[in-house]
Amino acid sequence: MSNTTALPISALHERVEAIFRKAGLNAIQSGALARVITAGERDACKSHGIYRIEGTLRTVKAGKVKPDAVPELVLQEGSAIVRVNAKCGFANPAFELGVPALADRARACGLAALVINDCTHFSALWPEVEALTEQGLAGLVMCPSYSTVAPTGGNKPLLGTNPIAFGWPRMGKSPYVFDFATSVAARGEIELHRRAGKPLPEGWAIDADGNPTTDPEAALAGAMLPFGGHKGSAIGTMVELLAGIMIGDLTSPEVLEYLGTTTLAPPHGELILAFSPQAFSAGRPGDPFARAETLFEQIAGQGARLPSQRRYAARARSEAEGIVLTAAEIEQLDRLLALGLDAVS
Amino acid sequence: MSNTTALPISALHERVEAIFRKAGLNAIQSGALARVITAGERDACKSHGIYRIEGTLRTVKAGKVKPDAVPELVLQEGSAIVRVNAKCGFANPAFELGVPALADRARACGLAALVINDCTHFSALWPEVEALTEQGLAGLVMCPSYSTVAPTGGNKPLLGTNPIAFGWPRMGKSPYVFDFATSVAARGEIELHRRAGKPLPEGWAIDADGNPTTDPEAALAGAMLPFGGHKGSAIGTMVELLAGIMIGDLTSPEVLEYLGTTTLAPPHGELILAFSPQAFSAGRPGDPFARAETLFEQIAGQGARLPSQRRYAARARSEAEGIVLTAAEIEQLDRLLALGLDAVS
Repeated sequence: MSNTTALPISALHERVEAIFRKAGLNAIQSGALARVITAGERDACKSHGIYRIEGTLRTVKAGKVKPDAVPELVLQEGSAIVRVNAKCGFANPAFELGVPALADRARACGLAALVINDCTHFSALWPEVEALTEQGLAGLVMCPSYSTVAPTGGNKPLLGTNPIAFGWPRMGKSPYVFDFATSVAARGEIELHRRAGKPLPEGWAIDADGNPTTDPEAALAGAMLPFGGHKGSAIGTMVELLAGIMIGDLTSPEVLEYLGTTTLAPPHGELILAFSPQAFSAGRPGDPFARAETLFEQIAGQGARLPSQRRYAARARSEAEGIVLTAAEIEQLDRLLALGLDAVS
Repeated sequence: MSNTTALPISALHERVEAIFRKAGLNAIQSGALARVITAGERDACKSHGIYRIEGTLRTVKAGKVKPDAVPELVLQEGSAIVRVNAKCGFANPAFELGVPALADRARACGLAALVINDCTHFSALWPEVEALTEQGLAGLVMCPSYSTVAPTGGNKPLLGTNPIAFGWPRMGKSPYVFDFATSVAARGEIELHRRAGKPLPEGWAIDADGNPTTDPEAALAGAMLPFGGHKGSAIGTMVELLAGIMIGDLTSPEVLEYLGTTTLAPPHGELILAFSPQAFSAGRPGDPFARAETLFEQIAGQGARLPSQRRYAARARSEAEGIVLTAAEIEQLDRLLALGLDAVS
């Protein structure tokens, strides 16, 4: 293992933050991005880790996101909607700005929504869901993406991979969290099959003529399919409606039209719902958190796995032993720090 | 067609309502049940039509629902949660009682929740979603059921078929509505295959040992599977958490333990979320309803179908020509009206 390095979590955070500062991002953008990228590496979610830095810098260099944006919080008396305008910066600092107000409103009203507008999103959604469970709230988060998925019965990319994430707080334990694309597979997985020269599993994609294909090239020229057939297609459509159109932000086809590519991070909005289990269960028998543990035991007790367990195991390892990076990864971080935006084309 | 009868929608409603009155249900229970059953027949959803009357009466006769319940509305100043206690009656009159307050709160707060507790549910969820879209609101509705579905990776019934329904209002058109079980198939479909002596499609169910089966008998003794693999399993679990545990009402395993059977209508709670597109889109560019039409055209324009279209076509036929029932169905309605609760064992 002489060609790997174990970095303490805080050391990786500092290094990633310094890269973004060097590339001209302001302190709030850099800090929030470094937090989610470091969390991805910590949890062994490599697809949302340091690998994402380059794409982020490319998006900045292309002028599709404002590196010095200062998000703005808009509160309205009596409303359960907390709105943050990201001012064309990344979603992450906008989310961090909105969470305290969202949590306050959710506790006061029972449920509340955080709407993020005019943001560029690139992170997984689970860090946001976990920020809510840390407050003792349940959370449901969704956002559009860019058109890569054909609605069931159709033959052209229209919907995004439109992720949905949900979290439920657990006392003294990592929360119950799921976070997944509403397509069968993530686009990156098709790209990985292409690079490896491997056929796709059946049911992942269709070619440009709308016929089922297992050829990754044909799939990338065609469309991905929603998970679970017409049901997943309907859920993906709901995400466009609630987290795109309803909040006055871009749908997946509009994002693609604006960007003209799927290689840059997508600009759009995001919808975060927070629920207070205390408020919802008030006056009713039983403690909701204790009852949820019974359900989790029933699930795990029959050999089914709760979601996110692999991630939490990796987190425990990273906390104990640091985040292990390869020599190539360390070199890449050094290069990005030295060159800033000049590191990307 | 001499052995069929076309009844005007209102005539069927009156007949169904009279059956429930004869069976001892009070006016609000009878009226609300008759409305959803008539809507099911009108939309050619036979599985939620008059076929359900007998099961409803059996549940009354078994003492598992209160035929004379009067639901109670509980409002709390400043909260976005509207609570209706069904007082151990059916969910439907409780829903009808709560909708005006839910719509008011959703308009005032941007979003609001209707919690129904201590109810017996037996209807499809789309009539409730449509009641929200009629108010210009988007709606998301969910409830547990009884344990019939194994979580992915498990081998025993634990989750319910846990339906989710969503609706988006359309001006001058039937709303965008989906309503489906989070299991691959509804339990009734497995029963239909059993009666017809037909094997199940692959992937619907497992036997009592946890092995995949296409034998309906083995499936009924085993467990159904969630739609879309681990993603559907996670969504089904979310329904247990939000619409069972969080609202202080029964989970699917608790319902099964209480009832001891899946042949009676399940007692539990229900969670209805209402969103005001006007409030969410306030101050943002574009009209959300016009933008949604663009998305629907993009979906339909590539040959994909919007959900519920078959239902709306049947509705148009019923409105023009009446609801067509067979002679056997008419006889059954007559028998139920004559005998009341004595018609069922």
